[in-house]
Amino acid sequence: MNLLIKGGDIVTHEQTYSADILCVDGKISQIGQNLDIPKDTETVDAHGKLVMPGGIDPHTHMQLPFMGTVASDDFASGTAAALAGGTTTIIDFVIPSPKQSLIEAYHQWQDWASLSQCNYSFHVAITWWDESVKNEMKTLVADHGVNSFKHFMAYKNAIMATDDILVSSFSTCLELGAIPTVHAENGELVHHLQQKLLEKGITGPEGHPLSRPPAVEGEAANRAINIAGTLGAPIYLVHVSTEEAVDAIKYAKDNGQIVFGECLAGHLVIDDSVYKNSDWNYSAAHVMSPPFRPKKHQDALWKGLQSDAIQTTATDHCAFCASQKAMGKDNFTMIPNGTSGVEERMMVMWDKGVNQGKITPNEFVAMTSTNAAKIFNLYPRKGVIAVGSDADIVIWDTKQEKTFTVSEQMSKIDFNIFEGMQVQGKPVMTICNGKVAWDKGELKSAPGDGQYITRPPYASFYQSQLKRNQLEEPEAVSR
Amino acid sequence: MNLLIKGGDIVTHEQTYSADILCVDGKISQIGQNLDIPKDTETVDAHGKLVMPGGIDPHTHMQLPFMGTVASDDFASGTAAALAGGTTTIIDFVIPSPKQSLIEAYHQWQDWASLSQCNYSFHVAITWWDESVKNEMKTLVADHGVNSFKHFMAYKNAIMATDDILVSSFSTCLELGAIPTVHAENGELVHHLQQKLLEKGITGPEGHPLSRPPAVEGEAANRAINIAGTLGAPIYLVHVSTEEAVDAIKYAKDNGQIVFGECLAGHLVIDDSVYKNSDWNYSAAHVMSPPFRPKKHQDALWKGLQSDAIQTTATDHCAFCASQKAMGKDNFTMIPNGTSGVEERMMVMWDKGVNQGKITPNEFVAMTSTNAAKIFNLYPRKGVIAVGSDADIVIWDTKQEKTFTVSEQMSKIDFNIFEGMQVQGKPVMTICNGKVAWDKGELKSAPGDGQYITRPPYASFYQSQLKRNQLEEPEAVSR
Amino acid sequence: MNLLIKGGDIVTHEQTYSADILCVDGKISQIGQNLDIPKDTETVDAHGKLVMPGGIDPHTHMQLPFMGTVASDDFASGTAAALAGGTTTIIDFVIPSPKQSLIEAYHQWQDWASLSQCNYSFHVAITWWDESVKNEMKTLVADHGVNSFKHFMAYKNAIMATDDILVSSFSTCLELGAIPTVHAENGELVHHLQQKLLEKGITGPEGHPLSRPPAVEGEAANRAINIAGTLGAPIYLVHVSTEEAVDAIKYAKDNGQIVFGECLAGHLVIDDSVYKNSDWNYSAAHVMSPPFRPKKHQDALWKGLQSDAIQTTATDHCAFCASQKAMGKDNFTMIPNGTSGVEERMMVMWDKGVNQGKITPNEFVAMTSTNAAKIFNLYPRKGVIAVGSDADIVIWDTKQEKTFTVSEQMSKIDFNIFEGMQVQGKPVMTICNGKVAWDKGELKSAPGDGQYITRPPYASFYQSQLKRNQLEEPEAVSR
Amino acid sequence: MNLLIKGGDIVTHEQTYSADILCVDGKISQIGQNLDIPKDTETVDAHGKLVMPGGIDPHTHMQLPFMGTVASDDFASGTAAALAGGTTTIIDFVIPSPKQSLIEAYHQWQDWASLSQCNYSFHVAITWWDESVKNEMKTLVADHGVNSFKHFMAYKNAIMATDDILVSSFSTCLELGAIPTVHAENGELVHHLQQKLLEKGITGPEGHPLSRPPAVEGEAANRAINIAGTLGAPIYLVHVSTEEAVDAIKYAKDNGQIVFGECLAGHLVIDDSVYKNSDWNYSAAHVMSPPFRPKKHQDALWKGLQSDAIQTTATDHCAFCASQKAMGKDNFTMIPNGTSGVEERMMVMWDKGVNQGKITPNEFVAMTSTNAAKIFNLYPRKGVIAVGSDADIVIWDTKQEKTFTVSEQMSKIDFNIFEGMQVQGKPVMTICNGKVAWDKGELKSAPGDGQYITRPPYASFYQSQLKRNQLEEPEAVSR
Repeated sequence: MNLLIKGGDIVTHEQTYSADILCVDGKISQIGQNLDIPKDTETVDAHGKLVMPGGIDPHTHMQLPFMGTVASDDFASGTAAALAGGTTTIIDFVIPSPKQSLIEAYHQWQDWASLSQCNYSFHVAITWWDESVKNEMKTLVADHGVNSFKHFMAYKNAIMATDDILVSSFSTCLELGAIPTVHAENGELVHHLQQKLLEKGITGPEGHPLSRPPAVEGEAANRAINIAGTLGAPIYLVHVSTEEAVDAIKYAKDNGQIVFGECLAGHLVIDDSVYKNSDWNYSAAHVMSPPFRPKKHQDALWKGLQSDAIQTTATDHCAFCASQKAMGKDNFTMIPNGTSGVEERMMVMWDKGVNQGKITPNEFVAMTSTNAAKIFNLYPRKGVIAVGSDADIVIWDTKQEKTFTVSEQMSKIDFNIFEGMQVQGKPVMTICNGKVAWDKGELKSAPGDGQYITRPPYASFYQSQLKRNQLEEPEAVSR
Repeated sequence: MNLLIKGGDIVTHEQTYSADILCVDGKISQIGQNLDIPKDTETVDAHGKLVMPGGIDPHTHMQLPFMGTVASDDFASGTAAALAGGTTTIIDFVIPSPKQSLIEAYHQWQDWASLSQCNYSFHVAITWWDESVKNEMKTLVADHGVNSFKHFMAYKNAIMATDDILVSSFSTCLELGAIPTVHAENGELVHHLQQKLLEKGITGPEGHPLSRPPAVEGEAANRAINIAGTLGAPIYLVHVSTEEAVDAIKYAKDNGQIVFGECLAGHLVIDDSVYKNSDWNYSAAHVMSPPFRPKKHQDALWKGLQSDAIQTTATDHCAFCASQKAMGKDNFTMIPNGTSGVEERMMVMWDKGVNQGKITPNEFVAMTSTNAAKIFNLYPRKGVIAVGSDADIVIWDTKQEKTFTVSEQMSKIDFNIFEGMQVQGKPVMTICNGKVAWDKGELKSAPGDGQYITRPPYASFYQSQLKRNQLEEPEAVSR
Repeated sequence: MNLLIKGGDIVTHEQTYSADILCVDGKISQIGQNLDIPKDTETVDAHGKLVMPGGIDPHTHMQLPFMGTVASDDFASGTAAALAGGTTTIIDFVIPSPKQSLIEAYHQWQDWASLSQCNYSFHVAITWWDESVKNEMKTLVADHGVNSFKHFMAYKNAIMATDDILVSSFSTCLELGAIPTVHAENGELVHHLQQKLLEKGITGPEGHPLSRPPAVEGEAANRAINIAGTLGAPIYLVHVSTEEAVDAIKYAKDNGQIVFGECLAGHLVIDDSVYKNSDWNYSAAHVMSPPFRPKKHQDALWKGLQSDAIQTTATDHCAFCASQKAMGKDNFTMIPNGTSGVEERMMVMWDKGVNQGKITPNEFVAMTSTNAAKIFNLYPRKGVIAVGSDADIVIWDTKQEKTFTVSEQMSKIDFNIFEGMQVQGKPVMTICNGKVAWDKGELKSAPGDGQYITRPPYASFYQSQLKRNQLEEPEAVSR
Repeated sequence: MNLLIKGGDIVTHEQTYSADILCVDGKISQIGQNLDIPKDTETVDAHGKLVMPGGIDPHTHMQLPFMGTVASDDFASGTAAALAGGTTTIIDFVIPSPKQSLIEAYHQWQDWASLSQCNYSFHVAITWWDESVKNEMKTLVADHGVNSFKHFMAYKNAIMATDDILVSSFSTCLELGAIPTVHAENGELVHHLQQKLLEKGITGPEGHPLSRPPAVEGEAANRAINIAGTLGAPIYLVHVSTEEAVDAIKYAKDNGQIVFGECLAGHLVIDDSVYKNSDWNYSAAHVMSPPFRPKKHQDALWKGLQSDAIQTTATDHCAFCASQKAMGKDNFTMIPNGTSGVEERMMVMWDKGVNQGKITPNEFVAMTSTNAAKIFNLYPRKGVIAVGSDADIVIWDTKQEKTFTVSEQMSKIDFNIFEGMQVQGKPVMTICNGKVAWDKGELKSAPGDGQYITRPPYASFYQSQLKRNQLEEPEAVSR
């Protein structure tokens, strides 16, 4: 069946104009006025609404086994939340245990993800290193549509990637046309500060941000950028949360390096006062890494988005409930790190970004969808409304209001970090693969409706820019 | 008659792909494979070639009356040079004398421009101020398709705009949805240094750069940016030539301000050693403002292009011949400022930019065409290859070589600042308004073939971003 | 009579150590243990106290005729306040009216200053320009001990110095070995914003900061620095109040330029919320230029002090009372600009700086005394405790507390911007020219006790650094 | 015997003035005119000469066992070279092998150093970690006058200190009042690049700089600074050689952190073209780490000195001869790293710094002596000409010229990286501990004349500034 979206104002990362859109077989087949409409076409009235590319959340963790428990949103509930928020594609993370085969882990995640209701793709984490890891990276790129690998610079004694691993993996990524991404926090410093705080008797969630001060992130961001730059590789920093990290990105970009940054909706609007709340559960619910920061960092992040130091917005959606958080009742370092956001992200960006005059509607599209598609080589298949692109579309009503609350959300988490925040501007319909998946508050999709999206290597968006990054080709001096 | 461009690789600011292009009635009507071709269609074979948007040179001065003489290229010869270099649109400058009616000057320039062989548009300079100027600005925007006004911060005792004029004019631009542009050099300092140098007996062209050191530009760039920022207006800096000015732009952009920068092909590759040449004519031929700079500034400009501090490339094409330069034989301050470049610009950018790995082909398109179209609100009519856009197209052969020389150029100037430079990559055909205007070295257009391009105000590219620029709306405190 | 200061801890800009100090004939004649004490020596017990160089406030306006009224502190009351706060030298400003002879104005101020109770010196303002001004600058330097000239970049239609005046005066300063200083605000922008605000009906003191946003200062700071840098002259920025101005200073210093910055005690601790107070008198009492700023600028100023972007602290002490402020009841632009501070400055710097861990005791001495002495060429006569130096000394009790209040201050102003602020650390004795001038809350000096301090040109502190600043010596090319 | 230095111009870091100096028992006992001269006083005529504090070279390696050989200058010849160059104190490095007792190594070095002809002190390197290391650090500080510990971030598989060691050692330094210093290069990247280059057949000295590009230093500098900053410790970067490292220091200092930088005379004037010389021996003689850099970095270093990003100058004097360098004939990674400089340093700084107008004579004293004395807590015992200070003095003739050449140097190395450089300004007499040690080209001292200088912890120069560095004292939230 075909779908006609009629009368809306199309907003892309570049332009805003009025036109109808015809979707056939899951793709956009025509855009314009007075389209030639086949029979069997359902019509959606979009008059007075914005029609935008469906959101891409490049950072989620559904059903993640972590810190001795498993995230409460599986791929079914987590992607339902995504659709409810206008997001049609998530990029989740395959995280092999140290010594585990990457391919084995990949298949495990694919198995879990078969319940997805929106489209999904995978980054794969590099948590250890030997020749077999390198070979499996090749296989993942060649045969499984993976073009990005993640590195945790924190979590010592668990999945932390030390500099030797970063060097080996980044080099391999460069060879394979994949992009390395990093969680940038200096794991040694975090570990040291955690021990010191526990020794001093700081065992509550207030210890969490104290063990991960901004310089810990700034250092690691700068290190990852320099390692990538030295090797000639591109680099993508997930969840940039500090002015220091933004400055590190700017310094590199000003020198011509290919660096991308992502920030989270939560970090843009929530500050570190949450950790001083007298309710342990409230504070613990906000434990994630990097932690929420003093307010001035929010300003740096918004300016980073405005000045293109940061290109994408994500959520790090990883739903740990109160009973899970309780594992760290006596020791903040054992509180599972993570919270939700995949449902609220686009509304937060619209209300706090567009409505506040901080970003424009076109920038909103770029930051919630297009840029992620370009960086992870899904563009123009995803991230844009254009003839030939996948029919992943959100219809947005800029006048409708909504108040976030745990009782009305799709996610299974029992807490909402945006609780009580009132926003104006929300998705009234989400179309995924040409089918209506979310309609005025009602889920129309089913588990399994989402498709796995392969991402080819050598993204044209930055590949030819990498020449700027390369060291001068060494030449032997003849003597 | 229709035109089919077959088999080429289309390069836009965003993408590279293979497809045919059909041009009908001066516009692009189809893009794709197996197009539906009407009769009466001429076919151009573009196999193995790149097909890109025709260049836009946003800074030329054809037939300019200046410093007691008139630039040697009129609109006929100057635009022929443009077409020969792949440029299909120029934006020239109407420069009223102080106290002259802007409308009167505008009509004078329109009269001269009737000989144009490529498309053209006009910036109008604000060289004086009273209410009538403000009113004429309104008329130019409303009735004549002007959306940008130029301000010379140098040339004291002539056309220099002092701060009070900048404040008044920038405010008016903001109201009208036009963009103010500035030639950023501190005219008082230039004047002072000129007098000091002449007093010391420095009368040759070597005095020219000494009278306009980099800080003179950096200061004015920063001043214009801050005045615009304080008023909430956008700002465009023409011919940025120094690290200091690039830094001023970056500082503002990092703080969320809407600032654009332009640099000249010449400043990217020629340094200030030209002024120490023992041949007076050679040195004088390079006298333009800002002057050519020490080499390190070239690096800053390239990095500025790479990091989006600078968006456009232009030429400031203003053809003064040796006999004209001779007016300043005994006093460098009387040498007419200006040289050529409209023909060489795109080839210089390709060879020194793309071939050297400094920019990518997509960035080349953005920097020679798309970005200017966006900033001056011609996009997507100009600056892109898309259905519905004007058929202004250049077909580029990346393998052909060319050596610049005065004897083979189209411009009437008797000097070529790029003389002897060998480049690889050149236009083999230029299509303007759907017609072949330049074909393998032969001019196919005629004077008058160019069209005047009106530019509407309130460019969507940055208009909604201006909210970021506005001062908080003042409110009276109730007491 | 001689004075022995016994048992204190001497704190200079470099060192902290315990020693006795003998003062003879107004100078320090011995420092050490077991000094050889002449008869007729009075002993002051300084055990448990700090003994530091008397403060130098390089920015005061006693008895200033301004905006149609005269500042309420004359040189007698104003310098009494200085002594009560540990300050033994002020540098006040001779401000000639446009067209007035500088020498004439100088003598007028000298006449007024004859009542001074502490030492004093004069900057002279350049408010207009012709050859006679240049000649009088020479005379002031050669015959009257003036080595610094002030330029107001604001106050259009009154005393504003336009760029041509800055260029002429800075050049003259360089020739004479004097240092130009600037009040950095773009007067054209201020004027424009004032008119706009009044048009919008903003007539109260809340309009004051809105008419002078931070960029207005940042621009002017950058302009003055670049003009000085281009000419090879040193430059001193008075009352730096914004992050933007601090950044402009850092940019120049990082490039080797000789730039000095001063900030005011008030700007370090008071923010712009004062202008939104519902009490007109309260808000108006805070009207001074530059205005108090949003809090983030305080952080920038403290960091500027820590990183040597800013060297000195001052007050801009200019005491306008409520009845005077009332002149602007219906129009904020007519509120006389100015407030007090000379008495509180050192205590504010100690409590908010040293006690908060932001600066060290040695840095406190540098920032309240030594650096001003060096820049204005009074060092080592003033600004240090050393054999041969003037016996201007403050004895400081780090344990005593004080709460600022208008009822207990020495200044005649009827408002105290620090009202209610409680500080720890205060002067218990101030010694000026070897005599006790202030002792535990009691004034011991009399009008006329202060000495006029001549300041020789060519300050060795930066004079030989100026070589870095000079443009390359121009040379004619032989042809 | 006493020594009177008569008629010279005394230059300290702050002042320049004419006075005589009397030295008694190795200390300065009087400064002034018409001194009271005891019998038995030898007089040195210093008319027309400058009299400055003897140089302090805070970075030398005499007799260092390294990379399978031992540096050719022992403490006798190396310190003779120091005296010949006006340097009266060196700070050398005790470098324990991994697992070796620090105390044992310390005594070994003390034994070797007993031959010193000038004064000497020791930094101790932390090349491994366990509790015993921490305990021995305490002993070294408490009993042996060590207040600085060195960390090599390069030299993987040898003496490289990984992040966990840096964290432990910096924390210990902070507790002990010692200052951590780092050799900042990312050892993992160096190792990786070395292997890649060797694989590509780059085996000659040209591979050396290619294996240690500027980002490798920039990264490590930033990392060390952030680790120190997070812990609240001060940090000193040895041999800063790149713009990137200077920028990292500036970023930290601008944020109020306590960071010090050192640069080498060689890096200020020699560039990386030396590695492309066709003579293997010539290139290999320049192999040291960090390597010599492209010219633009020299500019950054000079500006770093001017703007106080860098405080000290040193040499890393480590004399490996051609026969030793030959160990790496077939593999550049085996060329012993090091060259000389202790004799030339002050003359290079004078000629290339003072004579070129880049630094002033007072800054010369600060950068060659005073600042090192302050940072390493020798001030005012060393680093200044003041009553009570040690009589370590150099008498400088600004008119005499000298051409550096291996045949006339004191060092035993068979190569001089400054060969053929002609300088103006040289020491004509060096006085160490009140005795003439070098007089017009003749060595007057003997092995063993040098004294070991103990350095107390908690340097007052920065100790109280450290408050700025500390993280907010963590507090548990009561729930």
